[in-house]
Amino acid sequence: MDVVAGIDIGGTKTKIGLVDKNGNAFEQLFFRTREYQDLDDYLDKIKESVEVLLAKSAAPINLIGCGIGAPNASSRNGTIENAANLVWKGQLPIVKKMKERLDIPTRIMNDASAAALGELLFGNAKNMTNFITITLGTGFGAGIVANGQLIDGYDGFAGELGHVDMTLGDGRLTGLGVRGGLEAYVSATGLKRTILFMMSKYMNDSRFRGIAYNDLHGEDITKAAEEGDFIALKAFDYTANIMGLALANFTAFTQPEAFFLMGGLVNSGKWILEPLEKYFEEHLLEVYKGKVKLLQSGMSGKNAAISGAAALIWEEHQ
Amino acid sequence: MDVVAGIDIGGTKTKIGLVDKNGNAFEQLFFRTREYQDLDDYLDKIKESVEVLLAKSAAPINLIGCGIGAPNASSRNGTIENAANLVWKGQLPIVKKMKERLDIPTRIMNDASAAALGELLFGNAKNMTNFITITLGTGFGAGIVANGQLIDGYDGFAGELGHVDMTLGDGRLTGLGVRGGLEAYVSATGLKRTILFMMSKYMNDSRFRGIAYNDLHGEDITKAAEEGDFIALKAFDYTANIMGLALANFTAFTQPEAFFLMGGLVNSGKWILEPLEKYFEEHLLEVYKGKVKLLQSGMSGKNAAISGAAALIWEEHQ
Repeated sequence: MDVVAGIDIGGTKTKIGLVDKNGNAFEQLFFRTREYQDLDDYLDKIKESVEVLLAKSAAPINLIGCGIGAPNASSRNGTIENAANLVWKGQLPIVKKMKERLDIPTRIMNDASAAALGELLFGNAKNMTNFITITLGTGFGAGIVANGQLIDGYDGFAGELGHVDMTLGDGRLTGLGVRGGLEAYVSATGLKRTILFMMSKYMNDSRFRGIAYNDLHGEDITKAAEEGDFIALKAFDYTANIMGLALANFTAFTQPEAFFLMGGLVNSGKWILEPLEKYFEEHLLEVYKGKVKLLQSGMSGKNAAISGAAALIWEEHQ
Repeated sequence: MDVVAGIDIGGTKTKIGLVDKNGNAFEQLFFRTREYQDLDDYLDKIKESVEVLLAKSAAPINLIGCGIGAPNASSRNGTIENAANLVWKGQLPIVKKMKERLDIPTRIMNDASAAALGELLFGNAKNMTNFITITLGTGFGAGIVANGQLIDGYDGFAGELGHVDMTLGDGRLTGLGVRGGLEAYVSATGLKRTILFMMSKYMNDSRFRGIAYNDLHGEDITKAAEEGDFIALKAFDYTANIMGLALANFTAFTQPEAFFLMGGLVNSGKWILEPLEKYFEEHLLEVYKGKVKLLQSGMSGKNAAISGAAALIWEEHQ
């Protein structure tokens, strides 16, 4: 059976899996990225991990390629460049170095773009030619497909929509220091910041007045909303409004048929999704109203990051 | 010689030309759009005009197709839909009706997207696969090319970037009622509005305190800047700042290699372009800095709208 090694390089964890042509990761393992201060040691560890997974499989296996998703990755250059949450700095020639180790076709891509490719090949976007995937985790990731192709830009850094400024330079700072950057509002972290903002704005009682920012978790905010906590409800409404406006703005760009949502913030379910639907339609330009769907990602069951990375290779075999 | 009829349907004027394979419009004529209350009469007039141009030409001519640029046009549907500044309302099946009249291959497209195609085939974007054209006239038009293809979206309405809201819903209203819409700031009209805003903000003397809004023209603002008029200088700086931020935001979307600028506001030359360069680089995300060019359109010599429309057909013959 043909398989692809799907590798997700994250700031905290590295996830590796063997992925079949349907996007199912049937063998996988994780290790901590930060244990490796030296890039060559780290890539050796990836190579070993792939070999461990291959050895584990009972059925005979043919490894046809290696797909890698990573922050600040350039598909054009085959590199990771100055990723804020990785210890190795500068331009890292990941594709070249992995080929030296595994000697198979290897591609790398921004993790959010890889997720879009996964949605296209294995998820809910199978017959679509225009869509955008939005990953709402610690940050805000976006992958854009138009004319049936992934948009990766002049040198592979398209889709950094979490750093779009919608406040005329007068808003919150993101981790990258972008004032008004979208992910300072619309992300798991953004929601927590909005809890603080709402407590500064209103004097209403809230369970969050007894919890420090560092102890605040997304699930607590969902639970509080269920209990009718005023601050939590305000925070969801505020977040949904900005996100609705952002998705309406993005629609004016490539006019997608649908947005696919995934990640931590989406797990808050109706508390975020119901106001989002409302604000999104409200903010849409007349010519787009009623035409753009907000859908759940079809990758939630699978290991989205691993399958998305593997899609980089499977794309070329379909 | 093979030629294409390039037709630009504008709210005020309709421009028609015969365009050769290099994008040169060698015979052209204009007439007033608003003289035709009935769509069929209007399209008959277009047909007649094309025949007049064909008859005028000394050399033997072979008309191979008809390309049309228009506001709110959908390339997918072959229609114009609810264009604010045209008298005919609803979904207008322009391509179908023109084919009944001229019986040649016919395509229609949003005028700003047609301009991008013109830049690709005949202008300064000849070897580029990722760029965005920006037309700064009464409004703000944008045409997006990525992966070497025009981005037209799910049903042909991509690129409405003049209606992106960058003020979290708290800014000026556009003609379409979009609060904070970009073209309320960055366009010939936006610059005039900013003159009023600056006079409301500052008490400095200015030639514009003696001129009514309706009598205000773009060239006056350029002239005032040359004379050192404080209000004019402030207005250009403010406009350039918002435009720089907008282009930086757009870069995060498709990461173009270049923006091509054309239209009335660009005629203000260094007064807009110099601060624009500065603010644009300032607002760009680190990963894009120094990589994105701001260039003049190569279509200024040609009749950009007619040549762009003709590019819809020439594209398929190259």
